[in-house]
Amino acid sequence: MKDFMDEDFLLSNDTAKLLYHSYAEKMPIIDYHCHIDPEEIAKDRRFENITRVWLGADHYKWRLMRSNGIEEKYITGYASDREKFGKWADTIGRAVGNPLYHWSHLELKRYFGYDGDLNSDTAEQVWELCNEKLKSPSMSARNIMRMSGVSLIGTTDDPADDLGWHKIIAEDGDFDIKVLPMWRPDKAIGIEKPDFCEYMRRLSDVSGVSIDTFSDWKRAITLRLDYFSARGCLGSDHGMKYVPFMRADEKKVDEIFVKALNGRAVSETEEDIFKTECMLYLASEYAKRNWVMQLHFGVTRDNNTKMYNRIGADTGFDGIYNSVPIDKLASFLDELNKGDNLPKTILYSLNPNDNAAIGVLIGCFQEAGARGKIQQGTAWWFNDHLNGMTEQMTNLANLGMLANFVGMLTDSRSFLSYTRHEYFRRILCNIIGTKVENGEFPFDEKRLGKIVEDISYNNARNYFGFDV
Amino acid sequence: MKDFMDEDFLLSNDTAKLLYHSYAEKMPIIDYHCHIDPEEIAKDRRFENITRVWLGADHYKWRLMRSNGIEEKYITGYASDREKFGKWADTIGRAVGNPLYHWSHLELKRYFGYDGDLNSDTAEQVWELCNEKLKSPSMSARNIMRMSGVSLIGTTDDPADDLGWHKIIAEDGDFDIKVLPMWRPDKAIGIEKPDFCEYMRRLSDVSGVSIDTFSDWKRAITLRLDYFSARGCLGSDHGMKYVPFMRADEKKVDEIFVKALNGRAVSETEEDIFKTECMLYLASEYAKRNWVMQLHFGVTRDNNTKMYNRIGADTGFDGIYNSVPIDKLASFLDELNKGDNLPKTILYSLNPNDNAAIGVLIGCFQEAGARGKIQQGTAWWFNDHLNGMTEQMTNLANLGMLANFVGMLTDSRSFLSYTRHEYFRRILCNIIGTKVENGEFPFDEKRLGKIVEDISYNNARNYFGFDV
Amino acid sequence: MKDFMDEDFLLSNDTAKLLYHSYAEKMPIIDYHCHIDPEEIAKDRRFENITRVWLGADHYKWRLMRSNGIEEKYITGYASDREKFGKWADTIGRAVGNPLYHWSHLELKRYFGYDGDLNSDTAEQVWELCNEKLKSPSMSARNIMRMSGVSLIGTTDDPADDLGWHKIIAEDGDFDIKVLPMWRPDKAIGIEKPDFCEYMRRLSDVSGVSIDTFSDWKRAITLRLDYFSARGCLGSDHGMKYVPFMRADEKKVDEIFVKALNGRAVSETEEDIFKTECMLYLASEYAKRNWVMQLHFGVTRDNNTKMYNRIGADTGFDGIYNSVPIDKLASFLDELNKGDNLPKTILYSLNPNDNAAIGVLIGCFQEAGARGKIQQGTAWWFNDHLNGMTEQMTNLANLGMLANFVGMLTDSRSFLSYTRHEYFRRILCNIIGTKVENGEFPFDEKRLGKIVEDISYNNARNYFGFDV
Repeated sequence: MKDFMDEDFLLSNDTAKLLYHSYAEKMPIIDYHCHIDPEEIAKDRRFENITRVWLGADHYKWRLMRSNGIEEKYITGYASDREKFGKWADTIGRAVGNPLYHWSHLELKRYFGYDGDLNSDTAEQVWELCNEKLKSPSMSARNIMRMSGVSLIGTTDDPADDLGWHKIIAEDGDFDIKVLPMWRPDKAIGIEKPDFCEYMRRLSDVSGVSIDTFSDWKRAITLRLDYFSARGCLGSDHGMKYVPFMRADEKKVDEIFVKALNGRAVSETEEDIFKTECMLYLASEYAKRNWVMQLHFGVTRDNNTKMYNRIGADTGFDGIYNSVPIDKLASFLDELNKGDNLPKTILYSLNPNDNAAIGVLIGCFQEAGARGKIQQGTAWWFNDHLNGMTEQMTNLANLGMLANFVGMLTDSRSFLSYTRHEYFRRILCNIIGTKVENGEFPFDEKRLGKIVEDISYNNARNYFGFDV
Repeated sequence: MKDFMDEDFLLSNDTAKLLYHSYAEKMPIIDYHCHIDPEEIAKDRRFENITRVWLGADHYKWRLMRSNGIEEKYITGYASDREKFGKWADTIGRAVGNPLYHWSHLELKRYFGYDGDLNSDTAEQVWELCNEKLKSPSMSARNIMRMSGVSLIGTTDDPADDLGWHKIIAEDGDFDIKVLPMWRPDKAIGIEKPDFCEYMRRLSDVSGVSIDTFSDWKRAITLRLDYFSARGCLGSDHGMKYVPFMRADEKKVDEIFVKALNGRAVSETEEDIFKTECMLYLASEYAKRNWVMQLHFGVTRDNNTKMYNRIGADTGFDGIYNSVPIDKLASFLDELNKGDNLPKTILYSLNPNDNAAIGVLIGCFQEAGARGKIQQGTAWWFNDHLNGMTEQMTNLANLGMLANFVGMLTDSRSFLSYTRHEYFRRILCNIIGTKVENGEFPFDEKRLGKIVEDISYNNARNYFGFDV
Repeated sequence: MKDFMDEDFLLSNDTAKLLYHSYAEKMPIIDYHCHIDPEEIAKDRRFENITRVWLGADHYKWRLMRSNGIEEKYITGYASDREKFGKWADTIGRAVGNPLYHWSHLELKRYFGYDGDLNSDTAEQVWELCNEKLKSPSMSARNIMRMSGVSLIGTTDDPADDLGWHKIIAEDGDFDIKVLPMWRPDKAIGIEKPDFCEYMRRLSDVSGVSIDTFSDWKRAITLRLDYFSARGCLGSDHGMKYVPFMRADEKKVDEIFVKALNGRAVSETEEDIFKTECMLYLASEYAKRNWVMQLHFGVTRDNNTKMYNRIGADTGFDGIYNSVPIDKLASFLDELNKGDNLPKTILYSLNPNDNAAIGVLIGCFQEAGARGKIQQGTAWWFNDHLNGMTEQMTNLANLGMLANFVGMLTDSRSFLSYTRHEYFRRILCNIIGTKVENGEFPFDEKRLGKIVEDISYNNARNYFGFDV
C-alpha cells in the first residue's frame, strides 16, 4: 500500500517519479484563466479563517455538501463559520473518490503543513491549525501566490471594466507576479438576458460610443479591445451553451439588435444570429491582435430555479449540456479561417463525450506559426479530476500532439487552488511515465523532461506570448 | 495468475479483500427493483430443470445465443430443454468478457456448488448436477431467497393489479422476507399504444372511476396510488425513451386524452404533452407520499419487427437510444422542485454517455433531508457489467458522494440473480480498495467498512424507508 | 521497465504473451478493407525513398505535422523529400502517446530492421537505412505483401471501374495473394455532389443503360453489381455522415433524381430520401449475392475550406460527426430485415460514443447462419489506437460475442501498414490474457488460442466466404 498522499502521490512508477520531481515540480506556474478578484491582490487580502477561504465562494464544495444532505444554512446560510467548517469536515471525510478530497488535502499539506485526514474527528484540530496559520502575514493573498511559484495569472474581466486594480498591481514595485486582464464579453453578446439593455448603456458610457446599431456595437467593442490590449491583455474567454453558427446579413442583425435595445425579447434563432455575428467579429479582432480565443461551451446555467431565486447565480446549480453540435463549431472556425481571421483558439467542452470530436476538429485547423494553434483545453470544471484529466490528455495524445498542449489552469476564485497545478502535473507525469515503463515510448530523460516542462509551463508562455 | 473466480474474484488488493470479506459480504440484500413474479413466491415455485431457470425468460441469454449464430428453435423454439442447454453451454463457453459468463458461473458456484467452467465439454455434467440439485426443496423460490440473504424485494406492478399475491405473501407467517409492490404505470401513460383504450377501461373498472377526462384519469390514478400505499408500496418505476417536457393547459391535455380515448392516433407532440402532465402529476403524488420515483430512460423497444411479430416483446430486441435531451430532464425536475413537489428520484439512463451529465444534474437538486435525495441509479441493463459499474461508480464518486449511493438492484426475473449483488459488491470494494492502496484515500478500516456496508445495504433501506 | 517495443510489446502478462506468440502471430493476414491501389500491385511498384512511402499520401501523418506547427511546404508542398523526412522525424520524435509513433516504429522494425527511435537526432541514419533497403527487390509492393503474410486484400472500387488491374493480378501465376475488388458506390448515390451528373453519364456508359429514371439507375447498378460479382467481389463499403432513413414512393424518388440529373440542387430532405432508397436497393442486392455490407458513418468531410481549395480532399481535414441518430439506423436495418433482405453487415462509427448503442443494436438483428451476422467494425480511423481498440473490443465482449468478431483491417493506402494487424493482435491478446490472469476466465489454452486465431483470421475468412 502506498502511503496516503505522500511525495509520490499519483506517481505509480519510477519514470513518473523522475519526471515529476526533476522536471514538472520545479517549474513556475502560469494560471492563464482564473476568477481571482484582482482587488484582493491589490489589497493583499488576508483571511479571517479557513471557512472564509474554503467555503466563502466555492460552489464545488457547496454542491458536495448538498449531496451529503447538509442543510443550506450550513452552506450559504447564517450558521457560524465554525459550524459550517464542521459540516464540511463531515462531508469531505466521506468523499472517497471525489477530487475535492484531493484538492482540499493538497491545500492542507502545502499551505498549512497538515498531513493528516480531515473528517469529523479531526475538524477541531484542523480548524485551529489553519486559523492560526492564517494569522501569519505569510498567508496573505500575495504571499500565497509567491509561495506557490506563480509567475503570471490571467483574470476574467468584463469589457466595461476599467481594469483599475490591474493598474495598481502592475505599478506596484513590491509585487512582480504578472496579473493580466483577460477579456470576457459574455454580457456584451448576451442579447437574451434581461440586463442586456442596461449593459449596452454601460458599454456606451465607458466607450463614449452611442450604441444604436450593430455597427455602433462593433465600434464600442473595438475601443474596449484596444483598451484591454493597452493594459496587457493577450486573450479572451467566452462561456456558452454551444457555439452558434447562423449567418444573416447586417440588416437582419441590426433588426434583432434594435429589437433587443427596445426591450423586446428575441427568439432563439435571433439570438443565434446575433451571437454568431458578434463572435465572428470578435474572433477576427482577436486574430488581428494575436490574442488567444478561449471558448468554454456545453454548460447549462441555473438549473434549479428555486435556489436561483433564493441565492442567485454561480451557487452550484449549473450542469452539462448535450454534446456540442460539431457542424456549427466546425463552420464557425472554417468561416474565420477562410478569411485568415482565425485566432489561436482553445476549445473547452463541459461534456466529456466531446473529447474525441474536438480532439479531431482542432487538427483540421492547425497551421504553421503557433505549435498547436488550435488547442483542446484541459479537462474543465466537472471533468477536472483524475479520470477526466487522464482521459483528456490520453485523447489529445492519441489524436494530436500532447507535447504541444498548453496545459493547466485553475479556473478558480481561490488563492489556495494553485495546488491543482501540482495535481495536474502529477497526472501528466504518470501518464507519460507509464507509457515509458510499458515500453511504449523510449526512456530518453532529456526529451521526456523537456516535454513535461513544456506542458507544465513553457507552452502556455509561448502560446500566449507572455513576457515572463 | 489468480485462480479462476475464486473467493477473491475481482478483488485485486488487500484492502479490497478486507472490505469485501469483512463488510460487504455479510450484509443482507435489498433488491428494490426486480421483475420477480410474486405468484412464484406465493406458490414457492420449484424448477423442473436448469433450462427452465436459466433460459425460460432470460432475454439477455437469448440475445447472446443469437450472436453466436444459434437457431431460434434452440432459443425460444420447440427444441428440448436438454438441447437448448447444450446450445447455451456452447455459447457461454466462448463468451470471454461477457457479464453473462460471470453471472452464470457465480450462480453455478453459489447455488449448485459447481466450481468448474461450463462449456460444450462440461454441459452434460452440469446439466445432471443442476437438475439433481433442483429436485431438493432447498432450491424452491423461497429457499433460494433465504439462502441468498435477501431481506426485501420490490416487484414491478401495474396500477390495475390487485396485489393479491403480495397479500398472500405478507400474511404468510412462514416467510419473513418482505415482498413489496412497486408502482409501474407505463400503461397508464402509454397514450400512443394500441391497447391504451382497453387499459383505460381496466383502470376505470378497478378504480370505480368513469374515465372521460384527464381529471378523471388523475382521480383514478390517485385511488390506485392510495391502494398501493396501503399495501406497503414505497416507490415507483417508469420506463421511457426519454423524459418528456412539453407543457400545455388542461384543456389541451383533455383534447389529446379524449382523442386517444376515441381510438384516434396522437402525434408525437401530443404524446409528449400528455406524458409530461401525467409525469408531473404522478411525481407530485409520489412526493406527497414520500415515495421514490425511479426513471429508466434511453431505451428503444422492439427494434426487430420480424421477431416482434413472431415472438412478441421483451425477447431480446431492445436497444440504447441517443443521449438524453438533458434540458428536458432538467426542466422536468426543476418544475417539480419549484413547487416543492420533487420526490426522491433515481435516474437511470441506458446510454452510458449520459453518465457525466446525469452525475452533475443530480447535484443540482440535492437538499437536506435525504442523503442523496436525487440519485444516479446503478449501471442498468446493457451497462450492468464490470466496466459499466466501474464507470458509473467512478463517475458518481468524481461528481458527488459515492458514500450515499443506494447501490445495486437486479432488475431480474430470476431467483438466481442475487449473486449479482455479490458481483456489484466485489467491484465496489475493489474500486475503493484500489484508491486506498494507491494512497488516494486514508486506510481507516472503520470508515471504509461503514461506507461499503452503507452502499451494500443501509443506504437503500434508509432512502426508501424500508422497515427491515 | 519493459524494454522499448520489444517482442512482448503491449503484452503485459504471460497469458497474453502465450496467446500472441503461439497463436495470433503465426496467422496470415486478411485485409478485407483497404485503399491500396491495385495498379501498384499489378506493376509491383518500387519506392524511391522512405518519404514517398510514408508521406506521399498519408494524411494521418500530414495532420500530425500540422499539429506540430510544420509549414505546409514540408508536408504537401515543394520541399525536398529529405527535408520533409526531417520535419517528420522532428514531429514523430515528440509524439508520445500517438498511434503513429507505434505504427511508424513497427514499420521500421519489421520492414527495415531498425530497432531504434526515430527523432531529429536519428533522422539522417534512418533516412539512409530505409532508402538503402528500399533499393532491394525484396521491398517491392508484392514482396512486402508476401513478407507480411498477407493472404487476401479487399480494395476499394468504384462501380464504374473496369477492374482491369484486378484481372491482371488474378491472372498472374507468379502472385498468389488474392486481391479482390470491393464495391464502393459513394459517387453513385452522392446526389448532392457537383459531379453527380457527370458520374451518372459515366455509369451509363459503362453499363450501357440510358439513365433517366431511378428505375434506370437500379438497372445500371445491378449490371455493375453482376460485373463485380463475376470478378470475385464479396462485399461493399459505404462512407457517410449518417445512415439516412426517410421513405418516399418511387414517383417522389424519380422527381428528385430527375431534378439532380437536370443539374438542380436537391434539398437535404431530398438527399436523404434518395439515399434511403438507394441504400435499401443496394442492401437487398447485397443480400441476394451473400455479400457483406460495410457502413462507415459519423464522418464530416473537408472541414477546412481554405485548405480544400488549395490541396483538395483526403488531405487531413475530416472530422468526427455527432453521435449516430440510432433510430434511423435501426429503422434501416429493420426495414431490410422485415423483407429478409438484410445482408451480413458491419457497422463502423467514427464517433466512439456510438460504441455502446451499436454494440447493442447489432444484437437485435443476429440470426442463425453467419456467426455474428451483424458486426461492429474494428475501431476506425481516429479511433484506431490502443485505447480505441481496447474500448471497442471490451464493449463488444460486454455486449455480445467477442469470439465472433471479424477483426482487423488497415483501411490504408500503404503497403507498410500490415504491421497494424500485429498491433491489433497484441492488443487483443492482452485484453483476453489480462482477463484470464485476473481469474475472470479459465486458462484453457486450446479454447483461448482458438478464439485468438479466429479473430485474427478465421472469422473474416468464414464471414466473407473468402476462398483462402
